[in-house]
Amino acid sequence: MSLLVVGTMAFDAIETPFGKSDRIIGGAATYIALSASNFVSTIKQVSVVGGDFPQEELDHLASRGVILEGVQIKKDEKSFFWSGKYHLDMNERDTLETQLNVLADFNPIVPESYQDCEFVMLGNLVPAVQHSVLKQMKNKPKLVVLDTMNFWMDTAMADLEEVLKHVDVLLVNDSEARQLSAQYSLVKAAKSIMAMGPKYVVVKKGEHGALLFHADKVFVAPALPLEEVFDPTGAGDTFAGGFVGHLAKTKDISFENMKTAIIVGSAMASFCVEKFGTTRMREITKEDINSRINQFVDLVNFEIKLV
Amino acid sequence: MSLLVVGTMAFDAIETPFGKSDRIIGGAATYIALSASNFVSTIKQVSVVGGDFPQEELDHLASRGVILEGVQIKKDEKSFFWSGKYHLDMNERDTLETQLNVLADFNPIVPESYQDCEFVMLGNLVPAVQHSVLKQMKNKPKLVVLDTMNFWMDTAMADLEEVLKHVDVLLVNDSEARQLSAQYSLVKAAKSIMAMGPKYVVVKKGEHGALLFHADKVFVAPALPLEEVFDPTGAGDTFAGGFVGHLAKTKDISFENMKTAIIVGSAMASFCVEKFGTTRMREITKEDINSRINQFVDLVNFEIKLV
Repeated sequence: MSLLVVGTMAFDAIETPFGKSDRIIGGAATYIALSASNFVSTIKQVSVVGGDFPQEELDHLASRGVILEGVQIKKDEKSFFWSGKYHLDMNERDTLETQLNVLADFNPIVPESYQDCEFVMLGNLVPAVQHSVLKQMKNKPKLVVLDTMNFWMDTAMADLEEVLKHVDVLLVNDSEARQLSAQYSLVKAAKSIMAMGPKYVVVKKGEHGALLFHADKVFVAPALPLEEVFDPTGAGDTFAGGFVGHLAKTKDISFENMKTAIIVGSAMASFCVEKFGTTRMREITKEDINSRINQFVDLVNFEIKLV
Repeated sequence: MSLLVVGTMAFDAIETPFGKSDRIIGGAATYIALSASNFVSTIKQVSVVGGDFPQEELDHLASRGVILEGVQIKKDEKSFFWSGKYHLDMNERDTLETQLNVLADFNPIVPESYQDCEFVMLGNLVPAVQHSVLKQMKNKPKLVVLDTMNFWMDTAMADLEEVLKHVDVLLVNDSEARQLSAQYSLVKAAKSIMAMGPKYVVVKKGEHGALLFHADKVFVAPALPLEEVFDPTGAGDTFAGGFVGHLAKTKDISFENMKTAIIVGSAMASFCVEKFGTTRMREITKEDINSRINQFVDLVNFEIKLV
């Protein structure tokens, strides 16, 4: 019934055409948990932070049903730090600085109390760490979802290929799908990736929406056209949190329900980008979410009479 | 009841990562007519060709219900010629050569028998020529749709702005929408363009689908994910032909029906790119079209139960 999430909990410093942030709270597992907690009552988090990570942030997550037993706190070390800059085309970004800090020798430990998790979300992280979490699960989860990025394809491809064999759903963006498969056509890329292990491939295309592939089926979800995207940081993780949160809530892993999960993930991501960092994700209510999901229905709904 | 189409009828030479064509039949009005003739029985064409334009091409168009009275044939001159090269990202292309030939001093004449046209499709062409056609219409058409490109924004912006005041629907691609409006956000770009005249703005995004804007409403249509796009030449014109063809057939210019028209246009464009030039557009049947439109229904259809 519950959802296990592994990923970074970190500090980010972000620059976009609309402004600049100081060190603010970020990290894949932070965004995933903030997003998924709108759908499931309990999230069992695996991560690592330094002594500099604010207690109030941990308390906030706990208040949303995030169990922190699997979050290691290394008092004398510093949390992972990432700094990046976005340009007008926010599908691309420059990394300005990466300080691994506590992440350098992160050895995840899955507490015994996490063994009941049927849904596992492996947030973007060193593939060997993602794999280690999976190997610690004594029962095969109902669904394993993995997010990754081009950096791991450049530096740890063999490890990534290994963990992919045990993954049900892979989330990547379009350029990552192309890099992983060495195919330009996303249809061909998805086929190649499905041959590597995952039965479902979700290709995230930012402002152009997302594609879901499964066997010979495909589903296209739009992104909400927005006047401004203030800060895309965490949008992919927020998408993942909505996606896996909806699946864990409904316990239905059919293709039809995955389509709905993609729409839920897209709706959550559309909030994330409206303000810097995690700001917007802390504000939104169930009513906001329902209203946004209804906007997606209007966005793609059409009537057809054939010629 | 009938549809007036103005645009080029021309020769193209095309290079893509999948192959290279010799001089083949092309031109905006050719693609628009081939596409729209699947929906309306009569198309009244305005264009100009040289003595080198094959009679069998004219006969083929006539056999599909395309009236050629408004197509000037300049026996001693050569038809418009365009040569271009596409790369893997087919949303961008390089123009290798442009020979205006008959287009250099094209003065369109709308025959008296065309005056009953309620739907007017101004295909991509010199804005002053598009405007001249419109000025020759004695009664205000029910709907005027205009397609244009960045070249006219660079070279004839004042003329383009003038004709836009009399246009109901503008079709442009995303970079053109940005250039025309000087806005990066497509939502803001569409608002700016609507202030210039058109009540509807369609932003074509190639493999990423299309957006329809009207007042504060927006609709997103996907493109069909294809294993290969062999040749995107004419896809935008084919989209326009399906779009305006559906509207002229149904005589319903509501926002709801424009959404359907966008799907019809997207379905037609998805055929166009499957083979070089106009090849695929000559092969497809009503059954092919209906089956492709049904694929679009499956592509975006999802069920939602709110949280």
